[in-house]
Amino acid sequence: MFSPRPIGFVSSPYRETSAIPKGLGAQHEAVGVLKILPEYEAGLTDIEGLSHLFVIWEFDRSLGFELVGTPPCDQRAHGVFATRSPRRPNPIGLTIVELLRREGADLHVKGVDMLDGTPILDIKPYLSSVPAEKLRRGWLAEAEARQK
Amino acid sequence: MFSPRPIGFVSSPYRETSAIPKGLGAQHEAVGVLKILPEYEAGLTDIEGLSHLFVIWEFDRSLGFELVGTPPCDQRAHGVFATRSPRRPNPIGLTIVELLRREGADLHVKGVDMLDGTPILDIKPYLSSVPAEKLRRGWLAEAEARQK
Repeated sequence: MFSPRPIGFVSSPYRETSAIPKGLGAQHEAVGVLKILPEYEAGLTDIEGLSHLFVIWEFDRSLGFELVGTPPCDQRAHGVFATRSPRRPNPIGLTIVELLRREGADLHVKGVDMLDGTPILDIKPYLSSVPAEKLRRGWLAEAEARQK
Repeated sequence: MFSPRPIGFVSSPYRETSAIPKGLGAQHEAVGVLKILPEYEAGLTDIEGLSHLFVIWEFDRSLGFELVGTPPCDQRAHGVFATRSPRRPNPIGLTIVELLRREGADLHVKGVDMLDGTPILDIKPYLSSVPAEKLRRGWLAEAEARQK
C-alpha cells in the first residue's frame, strides 16, 4: 500500500483529547487553521468557492486499536466501524469543516475536532448531502432516546 | 506516519476506470459488497442499524499525483483538493454508501464508485449532513451553469 505523507497540519485550540467536545449533542464550532505545506499549495486552486470540506487526517497520538469499544456517548459497546473511535486499524480521522476563508496556504475553518498539530492527509470537496429524512443512525439514536 | 493496511476489499461491478460514471450529474447507484477480512469482523458490531456509511479506501491503481488538473466535468483546471481526482498526494478515496444489508463480514451497499478489488482502509458511520441550503459548490456549480 502507499506510504502516507502529511500535506499539512491542523492549528487547533485543542491541546489535549479531554478538551474536545464529545458525546451526544457535542457541538463542533471551534475555529482552526488547516496549514497546508507550501509544496502542496497549488492543489488549493479554486477551493475558495466551496463552503464545506472533508478533511482526512491521522490520529497521530492514538495507540493501537480496539475492534469493540464503548464510546463516550453510550454505556454499551459497539464495533469500531460503527463509531468514530480514534483506536482504529488504520488511524484515519474524517472531519467535515466549513471553510471560512483562505489566506494563501492557510484554510481558516470552523468545526475542527482535531488536536493541535494533527497531520492532514487529504482535503476533498463536500458537494452533496444525504437528506436527513433518509438517515438512520442506529445505536446512536437508541443511546439518545435512552438519555431522554 | 502509520502504515496503511487493508481491512477488506470492494467487490464492485466496475473492472475498469472508464466504466465508472463520472462528470456532472453522474449517479452512483451501483450495488457492491464491502468484503471485510475475518479478523476485523468484530468491528462491524451494530453497524446494521446505520443507513449510510463513509468508506475510506485506497486508489490502488492510480499513479503519482497532479496538484492542478481538469476533471471530467469541466474544461477548466482546478486544484486537486477541490476535486475528487484519483491522482492525489495521498491516494485516498472517500465514498458515501447506503448500507442495504449485512451478511457476516460482507456489507452489501449501494453507491459504489470504486474498482473491483479496491482495498478498504476504514468505515465510519454517516451520522449527520450539512443542510443543502448551506452548501456552496464553487467551481462545480459554475461548470453546471455553463453546461445548461
